Order: sequence, then C-alpha cells, then structure tokens
Amino acid sequence: MENFEAKQINGGICAAKGFKASGLYCGIKHGFDGNESPISNSKNDIAMIFADVECNAAGVYTSNKVKGAPVVVTKNNLAKSGGKARAVIVNSGNANTCNADGEEKALEMCRLTAEQLGIPSEQVIVASTGVIGQVLPIEPIKYAVPLLAEKLSYEGNTQAATAIMTTDTVKKEYAVKFTVDGKECRIGGMAKGSGMIHPNMATTLNFITTDCAVSPEMLQKALSEIVKITYNCLSVDGDQSTNDTCMLMASGLAGNTEITAETANFETFKNALYEVMKNLTIMLAKDGEGATKLITCVCGTSPDLDTAITVAKSVIRSPLFKCAMFGEDANWGRILCAIGYAEADFDINKVDVDIASKSGRLAVCRQGAGVDFSEEKAAEILKEDEIEILIELNSGTVSATAWGCDLTYDYVKINGDYRS
Amino acid sequence: MENFEAKQINGGICAAKGFKASGLYCGIKHGFDGNESPISNSKNDIAMIFADVECNAAGVYTSNKVKGAPVVVTKNNLAKSGGKARAVIVNSGNANTCNADGEEKALEMCRLTAEQLGIPSEQVIVASTGVIGQVLPIEPIKYAVPLLAEKLSYEGNTQAATAIMTTDTVKKEYAVKFTVDGKECRIGGMAKGSGMIHPNMATTLNFITTDCAVSPEMLQKALSEIVKITYNCLSVDGDQSTNDTCMLMASGLAGNTEITAETANFETFKNALYEVMKNLTIMLAKDGEGATKLITCVCGTSPDLDTAITVAKSVIRSPLFKCAMFGEDANWGRILCAIGYAEADFDINKVDVDIASKSGRLAVCRQGAGVDFSEEKAAEILKEDEIEILIELNSGTVSATAWGCDLTYDYVKINGDYRS
Repeated sequence: MENFEAKQINGGICAAKGFKASGLYCGIKHGFDGNESPISNSKNDIAMIFADVECNAAGVYTSNKVKGAPVVVTKNNLAKSGGKARAVIVNSGNANTCNADGEEKALEMCRLTAEQLGIPSEQVIVASTGVIGQVLPIEPIKYAVPLLAEKLSYEGNTQAATAIMTTDTVKKEYAVKFTVDGKECRIGGMAKGSGMIHPNMATTLNFITTDCAVSPEMLQKALSEIVKITYNCLSVDGDQSTNDTCMLMASGLAGNTEITAETANFETFKNALYEVMKNLTIMLAKDGEGATKLITCVCGTSPDLDTAITVAKSVIRSPLFKCAMFGEDANWGRILCAIGYAEADFDINKVDVDIASKSGRLAVCRQGAGVDFSEEKAAEILKEDEIEILIELNSGTVSATAWGCDLTYDYVKINGDYRS
Repeated sequence: MENFEAKQINGGICAAKGFKASGLYCGIKHGFDGNESPISNSKNDIAMIFADVECNAAGVYTSNKVKGAPVVVTKNNLAKSGGKARAVIVNSGNANTCNADGEEKALEMCRLTAEQLGIPSEQVIVASTGVIGQVLPIEPIKYAVPLLAEKLSYEGNTQAATAIMTTDTVKKEYAVKFTVDGKECRIGGMAKGSGMIHPNMATTLNFITTDCAVSPEMLQKALSEIVKITYNCLSVDGDQSTNDTCMLMASGLAGNTEITAETANFETFKNALYEVMKNLTIMLAKDGEGATKLITCVCGTSPDLDTAITVAKSVIRSPLFKCAMFGEDANWGRILCAIGYAEADFDINKVDVDIASKSGRLAVCRQGAGVDFSEEKAAEILKEDEIEILIELNSGTVSATAWGCDLTYDYVKINGDYRS
C-alpha cells in the first residue's frame, strides 16, 4: 500500500457522486402501532441508499452455514441482475435469520423498495442485523419505505449510518478522495458491528460506495483483496455472525475510463479502498462491545501474508491476552502463547515482541524468551487507550495487521443481557 | 462406552496399588527465604508422586509451538527411558516456560528428585504450571524435594492434588475400580486447570495412575483415544496452554495378564479410563475461571465422531453463547450461529436444538429455524447451575459431548489481574 495519495473527506456513503441516503426509526425491535407515526426521537432502525444510476456491485458475505435470509436474497438478486444494483434497504433490531419466513420477508423488503423507487427488485441489496431467530415484523418496514424514499438526500449518510447501529455506541463512516485519469474519484463507507465479530468477514454490515468507474470483475477482486487485510483481520469476540455482508457499489459518475484490468489505476483504487476499509475496521475495533482499549497487533518479517495474518489474529482474539490488556498487565507470556498456537509454520525461537503506545515502546520478548524490562515503563505504556503489539517473526519480509480490543466486564454485561 | 462396570472409589492418584504421593508449600511464587522453613499454612505448591515399581508411561502434550521446558524434558526423558517412569515432580506458581534457562531448571528438578529417590533421572516426569516467562526459582525446590520424599504416603493424593492448583478453586480427583481377568484394578487421577483451557489438551496438568498391567503401546493408544473425547472436548476460554500435559502411569501391580492388544480387556480398561477422565473434565469445566454454570453440549445423530466433536466444541467455546448462559437468556440463535461456523460438513437445515437442566427440557429450534417456546419455561431451565444443550444433526448415528462454562465478570477480573 505504498504511494498512496487519498485524502480524507466527509460524506460517508454519500461522498461519492450519485448516492443518496436516508434513515429513520420505525419500531422494528420494540414494536410499531400501525396507526401512529413512529417514535421520532428513538435511534434510527432502517436505512435506504439509492443510486442515481445503475451501479456495478460486488459483495463479500458470511461463511457461516447459518446465513441470514437477507444474505441469501442479496446474493440471488445480484446473480439475477448480473452484478448490477441501484438501492440498498437495511434494518437493525432484527437479523431476519433462522426464521421459516425469512426469505419471504427479505424478498418483500426488496419488492417494497423497488416499487417505491421504480427499479427492478433484483437491483435491491437487502440486509438486516440484530437478534437471530425472531420473526421480522414487516409492518414497520411497509410504513417506513415510502418515508425513506421521500427523505433520500445527498446529505443523508449520517441518518443511514445511525440506522444500522445495534450495540454500537458510535456511528462509523469514512470517506476519501483520490485521482484516477485526472478525474477526482471518491470512496465512502459506513459500517456497523460491535460484538459477534471475528475474522472472516468480521462485523455484520458494511456498505461502500464509489463514483470511480470499475468493471464488476475488478470491483469484486478489489473488494475481496481488501476485505482479507482489513475486516477479516478484526476480532472482537471470536463469534462469526450469520449476517456479515460487505457491499461495494460503483456508480462510475467520476468520469474516469472504466478500470478493467490490474493497471496502475487499479492499484490507486485499491489503495483508496484500503484507506476507507482500514479506518472503518479501526472504528469497529475501538467500539467493540465493552471495549476500553483499541489493540493493534502488527506481525512483521513473516515468510508470507497468510502466516502474518494468522499470527496477528491469533493474538488479537486470545481472551487471556484481552483480559491482560484490560488489566493493563504486561503479561507478554500470553502473547507468546497465542503466537504459539497460531496454525502457521515458523520458528518460535526467532520471535521478538514489543509493546507500544504513545507513551513509548518496550521490548518484552527476544528470540522466544523473556527479557528484563521495567514494569513501571510497561504500566505507563499500557495505561493508554490505544496499544500496539509488535511481533517480528524474523523469518521473511511480509507483514500484516490485526485489530481488536480488550475483554471487559461490560462485554459480559452487554451480552448477558442482549435480547431484553 | 457401553457395558461399563467401573465403580467410583476414593484415593485419587493413590487409589491404584503402588503409588505414593506428597505435597507441600515451598514458596515458588511468593518467594522463599532459604534460611527458614516455608509458610506451612499456605496452599501447597509442589507435589511428588513415586511408584513402588517401574511403570509403563504414556503422555499427551500441548500442541502449542511454545512448549514449556518441562514438557520438552519429560518427552525427552520418556524417549530415553523407553517409556518407563517411576516418579513425578510438579510445581504450581510458575510455568517455567519462555525462560532461557528453562530446560536446565527442569532437568535440575528431575536430577534432584532422582537423587533423592535413588532412581534414574530419565524416569522422572516433570511438570510446571503458573505464570509464563518468569524465571523459576530453584532454591525452594531444592528445599522441598527431600521433604516431599519424606512425606510420601499411600494417602498423599490430596496433598498432591492441592499442590497443582493455580486459579482452581477446588481440587480435582477421581478414581474407579474395575475388574480385568478376575483381578481388581484401579485407575485414579488428579487434574488442574481453570483458565487457558481449550480443545486440544484442554487444561494444563493431568496425572493418572493405574495398577492395571498394560503394555506401553496400548497405554498410549488408550490415553490418546480418551483424551480426544474428554479433555480435548473441554473449553473454558479458547486459549491453549503451553504446558498442557496428561500423563498415565501403569504399575501393573493388580496382577492381571498384561493387556497387549485390542481385546475385550482393553475395552474394559478404556471404559474405566474414560470414566476417570470424563469426571475430571467435568470438574475442570465446573471450575472454569469465574464460572457460575457447568454447560454440557451433546451433539447427536452426526455422520461421524469428528463432526460431532467439532460442532459441540464450537458451541461450548462461543463467547456470545457463554455470556447468554451467564445471563440465563435462551438466545438459541447464538447456539445455531456457533453450529453454523463450525468447520464441518452437514446440513444446517436439519439441525434441532433443545435446552435442558434438572428443571426440564425445551425444544428451541427445529430444522434450523426457531420454534415458539415458553420464555418462562426457558428461564426456569436456565436458572439451574448445570445446563445441557442438546443438538441433533439428524444426519447419522454418532454423538459426542463437549464441556464448558459460562463467561462471567469474574473471568475478566481473574485474568485482568493474574500476575499480581
């Protein structure tokens, strides 16, 4: 990811040309009385994205055998539409998963949206997040869709970003601009996810839009590559959601010549996409359920990318390591232990580990064994709310980063009490 | 494990003929002043087992790349001695792992023990458990070994069982008697482990003794088979220890004809071994760090054993499921979700799930979808401190069981604060 020249901008999923969005509250989780207007001061629970033109679309989905009905329907839709999409309809408060009528309801969400917007139903991407196994009430959605269409605006990104939150405490949006063919292009995204986050499409929902013209094949290639080194390197709790979905839509309205091969322009596009997805990943890690610290684990001098990813992820997901971070305890033995049970091939006796934060950097392990270090300095480093674990395998030249958070009382509290 | 006729008895690792044990406190963790006798009212931290005769010995060890020095030394010793062992020396309070002088210290523990007992050094099994990466102080051990030898007795099992505890809140011992060739045989064991417990040699230390005569090959075969369906089906937190060791020693003093092949007697022996190891596994799960509930997950009607084990383990280790159990919330969607991300091949749409306890049994999922159930009944069931999750894959005839516990505030507390 060298020579990167993307610049952060505002606007989230509306940053790119040609994308409107909206969000509102319709009472999906707490019930809706069809005769009254929904409670307007509650957190939004349904969002719509609508593109001015037909977009190329790419997706990466959960690999859980239990797939949310919206995941199944979205995949089918994109297969039918030849990878073209115009709109997204997405709700929080109910995952519409493990319900006998799940697909029927997800199809109904597409149909309602398509009718309202005057587009083909298979050009609608549908997604849901929330509790699993409770029947999705369709009435609030029927009520909401016309209102969402009415509210669509080029400044609607934040309405939409708040609508997809569940136990998230902050909205997650990020956007950049960059140049391809002398044309200014933009990529923007929003994400939600707080628990049930684990490598392989960590986090439940991600929507990214761009005005850069990219062919369907190259769009999918870019998305799959960048998911691997961003969302898939994020772990909050080791549970993999049933509804994980990452969608990328390209309107082409920036006016560049369509990217159709692995050219320099493709690299530029991927770098910009990485910047957006990496920053969303960091926001997701920081906002992990109950998290008090963002943990970044970099595994360097690895023989290959997969080894680096496997090792970094193994540390970031270790409950004992996560508890030690919460306790601000430089228990580096747990880091080495987690490196040791990573399913990868390298020499543990070459491994070095440092801990770092804005308060400094400290060597804690050299060649697989402990080194004397100042506990006072370690305590000072670990007191910060952003901690880095720096691992060197000393067996190659490749590196990878994984992101996570500490394990706290509040994680247990939030998840002991989720459905209520 | 049909037609089993073993009967529970007392005596732990001293239940079988020919095994003495002892334990005492020597100050490994909290320091030892060589001039004074150790604090006698503290928890024991070092134990010895001594067999009257040379024993056949079998072992299963951690597969973590980071291996405790005692694991390396024990494996080497048994290789040198041709699988024969006479004694065990084991300490808690320090894992002797990731230290530059670790093997030297572990060898010194063997040498001290061997000299004291007048046996070859390679017939000593050495093990350590506790914090990783802190130099093991040898002075307390030098002090302790002669005292341990002096205290050895056929009733010393509980002294030893308490000496291996770290964050364990209760000692774990179990023993049975059974008959082979008309001779009464016994198997007894002790275990420790509370956190850093995960499939693949869950728990750190297990010692099992028997007076049944079994050849080294069949002893190893029995141990490996039973470890797979007991300790390896236990998860407390998903972390795999560096020091996991399960040792089985057979004195042969029961007087039966040595078991040298897969005969009916071998099956009888394995059944008895299963009974001991299963009960130790349950004790370990119940005493998981911070646990308030024992969770047993049975996966039935599976196409094969590995699938059944993989599915049962996937549920038992899910942090979200574990939090729901702590919260006594019948959030069965999390169970199905964890079944769904198990890396195994079966049809999720055939899966049924029930929850049960001594307060009753309730169907919560049929053919991969939720069913209506009484939340009141569910709450009543989940209020108990022993919960069963009953999964049917409806795709075969094999079943397996995994054991675990809930995830609680206290797990976080214990592990945020371990080294201090």
